[in-house]
Amino acid sequence: MPLEQVELPRSRLAAPASLAEFCSTELYDRASHSYGKAYRDVVRAFRGRFDHTPDVVAFPRDEAEVEAVIDWCADARAAAIPVGGGTSVVGGIEASVGDGYEGAVAIDLKRLDRVLEVDPVSRAARIQAGATGPSLEGQLRRHGLTLRHFPQSFELSTLGGWIATRAGGHFATLYTHIDDLVESVRAVTPAGLWESRRLPGSGAGPSPDRLLLGSEGTLGVITEAWVRVQSRPTYKSSAGVPFADFAGGAEAVRALSQSALYPTNCRLLDPAEAALTGASDGAALLVLGFESADHPVDSWMERALELCRDHGGRGGTKADRGPAGDRVSDSSRDAVGTWRQAFLRAPYLRDIFVAAGVISDTFETAITWDRFPAFHATVMAVAQEAVKDICGGGRVTCRFTHVYPDGPAPYFTVLAPARRGAELEQWDAIKRTAADAVIAAGGTITHHHAVGRDHRPWYDRQRPEPFARALAAAKAAVDPRGVLNPGVLIDPGSKLTAP
Amino acid sequence: MPLEQVELPRSRLAAPASLAEFCSTELYDRASHSYGKAYRDVVRAFRGRFDHTPDVVAFPRDEAEVEAVIDWCADARAAAIPVGGGTSVVGGIEASVGDGYEGAVAIDLKRLDRVLEVDPVSRAARIQAGATGPSLEGQLRRHGLTLRHFPQSFELSTLGGWIATRAGGHFATLYTHIDDLVESVRAVTPAGLWESRRLPGSGAGPSPDRLLLGSEGTLGVITEAWVRVQSRPTYKSSAGVPFADFAGGAEAVRALSQSALYPTNCRLLDPAEAALTGASDGAALLVLGFESADHPVDSWMERALELCRDHGGRGGTKADRGPAGDRVSDSSRDAVGTWRQAFLRAPYLRDIFVAAGVISDTFETAITWDRFPAFHATVMAVAQEAVKDICGGGRVTCRFTHVYPDGPAPYFTVLAPARRGAELEQWDAIKRTAADAVIAAGGTITHHHAVGRDHRPWYDRQRPEPFARALAAAKAAVDPRGVLNPGVLIDPGSKLTAP
Repeated sequence: MPLEQVELPRSRLAAPASLAEFCSTELYDRASHSYGKAYRDVVRAFRGRFDHTPDVVAFPRDEAEVEAVIDWCADARAAAIPVGGGTSVVGGIEASVGDGYEGAVAIDLKRLDRVLEVDPVSRAARIQAGATGPSLEGQLRRHGLTLRHFPQSFELSTLGGWIATRAGGHFATLYTHIDDLVESVRAVTPAGLWESRRLPGSGAGPSPDRLLLGSEGTLGVITEAWVRVQSRPTYKSSAGVPFADFAGGAEAVRALSQSALYPTNCRLLDPAEAALTGASDGAALLVLGFESADHPVDSWMERALELCRDHGGRGGTKADRGPAGDRVSDSSRDAVGTWRQAFLRAPYLRDIFVAAGVISDTFETAITWDRFPAFHATVMAVAQEAVKDICGGGRVTCRFTHVYPDGPAPYFTVLAPARRGAELEQWDAIKRTAADAVIAAGGTITHHHAVGRDHRPWYDRQRPEPFARALAAAKAAVDPRGVLNPGVLIDPGSKLTAP
Repeated sequence: MPLEQVELPRSRLAAPASLAEFCSTELYDRASHSYGKAYRDVVRAFRGRFDHTPDVVAFPRDEAEVEAVIDWCADARAAAIPVGGGTSVVGGIEASVGDGYEGAVAIDLKRLDRVLEVDPVSRAARIQAGATGPSLEGQLRRHGLTLRHFPQSFELSTLGGWIATRAGGHFATLYTHIDDLVESVRAVTPAGLWESRRLPGSGAGPSPDRLLLGSEGTLGVITEAWVRVQSRPTYKSSAGVPFADFAGGAEAVRALSQSALYPTNCRLLDPAEAALTGASDGAALLVLGFESADHPVDSWMERALELCRDHGGRGGTKADRGPAGDRVSDSSRDAVGTWRQAFLRAPYLRDIFVAAGVISDTFETAITWDRFPAFHATVMAVAQEAVKDICGGGRVTCRFTHVYPDGPAPYFTVLAPARRGAELEQWDAIKRTAADAVIAAGGTITHHHAVGRDHRPWYDRQRPEPFARALAAAKAAVDPRGVLNPGVLIDPGSKLTAP
């Protein structure tokens, strides 16, 4: 629907004069901060349906302005919702905050987008929370450095968003969640500034950073962080290894994950998914890669391919790049490159799917290796049954996005024909069924998409009950009026007290 | 002082009949659970001085008995202090709990010492919290597996203690804190059982495990955990590389830590420390090692030695072991072996030092590479000045125990002549001075020794204030009567409420 036809409820809040300069109640700003990028978000926006809209969108230019907005929200009994790139697929920024608030304010951090300091000796950088992937990589490139954190949302999403949601990145093994790349975090809370020391490691009590990581805006607004960066890789080797089936490929990946070779890329696509990306035909495909800024990676790749062969890998194709970046040898005929392009393009297809009447959804989890075969069989069967029942057909595919010595992170993609007008109900029903199956079979409701509002029912079943109490109490201590992103992780308003 | 001459205050508590079978008020049990293994602990025990003693020592045989003890403590308004191996060097188990309690109960978990389940597919094991290093390694060995977590206290300390204190282990790089080896944790809290799911990775909210890790008994009594184990290494290569001085060696270690080669061992000893262990003469010594259960590590070691040479390393000596465990080649003349023996023997020398009138202390921290040279110079100067002023002389040495891409974990050893009768005051003064210097220069008050009661003043300066509030609130939520290890991390009694 064209923007001029969109009708939003009148804004219930007016920013005080001192904040007016960086606060907006414009239609475009409010509409564009209503939703994330989930299928249900795209469908609703497409139809011009705005269930929840922030009353004001603030664009603070520095930390003092972030503090001022939070203070105002507390006084006005408004919910404050921090927004990074707005790419949440779990309702993380939707102003569905219950009845306990006089309105909602989206705090868009995009103006805090600078790399403030670079420490080439420790290979670390102090970066503002609103910097997007391309922006921070561009600024780091001048120093020959890179964060190498490339979630699928990379072009739009921000450092602060990655930290708040424990984003998973580029690396398929080893340091992959942003959790491991964070050296210290700085956040504004209603109880004051929360800033940890820059430390390579510490054993002083429970980690303060690890409580902010994954807090999804409920404990504070992250304004900047010191992150671990690295030299740009000069040696690269990649390979595509076909396997007769997904189960055989999974066994090879298990061996790789337990080999301590730490491949940079180790993504296993099932036959349907491999075919979908045009990267293979009829076989499961392992996309394997090593990279280094320090040394040739031949020994690593050789041993990895040996492990693949030992587990039924069919030879495979390989491409190497030397320090000059030129292609040393190449027999891969672009299977790997094709997959990479498809991976990066995927999120942008969602709009097209919606327009074409195709329900598309992804859900992702993690499970230990011992339970993986049964888990995969059950979840695939349940999801396939669900799309058949609900949509009369469709396809469910699976790949590994990340792997650990003790288990993989399987990522499922659902594509099914939509019934016009019933898409949201259909999507909800599929999502519910899949999430129930994941939780019942012992998985996590999310490996790197976060909890938001959409995953709450399953998150509540998953987390230890005393931890839920501890987290709610921790929030009440730093946000006594319950201003920050109510409804995410913790029930909204349950801790609201009169000013 | 012989045990029969020790006099302790009468026990203020009597366990109810239902718990009597596994509770003791015996002199030996109470005396031996009064202190950890810090210098000041050994001196006091040596002199027969017991400042704080638990009134009862419980030896629960299962989780139900742990729960029963905690319930009893809550009813009796007694402090409950979980004890693993009792090797705390920071007053972590000393019953110095303030005036708000009717007494103190030490909960010794040594009877929960079994490996309950082994999952060879995911390479994980479910182990009870009271299992010591040798006990759990012995049980894992039958399955060809190992946890490979070897803190210096290995022979006495326990899995539960490691988790509660975020112990640092065997590996000098990569997965080294027990934090990274934990797949899920189970703990008894006054608010019920806190048990996380077994997951290789998750992004569902802040990690529940990471809040228990480092909680030092304040949030719950850890009863068991699933941990990541691995195959026993078959390929090993080690080398001792001398450097003209510590600063030169540190530059080589920085290059190694940023190379993504991930040496298993990468300990740099300064010249005085190298001489002290008999492993070198006049030079700084880098003890370097690689190991693998999957592949020969020659490529790794070759590149590492190249990096050492590039940074002034003097050739060095090397020993390799092949899959059969036999020595393939050896030119190391035992520099590495000598260091390893000295490392493992060190804690047991403390008793001898005390008897011989030598003050011995270690303090450890972490700092980013950019600040390391100035940090090292300042802390060494301050500590050397302190031992001169306080003891009339003595020596301060330094080594790296762990290194990260963004910085090392320096470990300082102090040896100085004691003035008989004044040892504790001398030790306190040195400790205070060193800790002040570490915190002022930007380090952490502890990299792997924990906070306990002894590090509280500096920990309080180090942690973000809103986090301190959040942690106190989290504790109050799961331990509303403030029973669990009061005084550690959080002020004792401040949250005590009448039953």
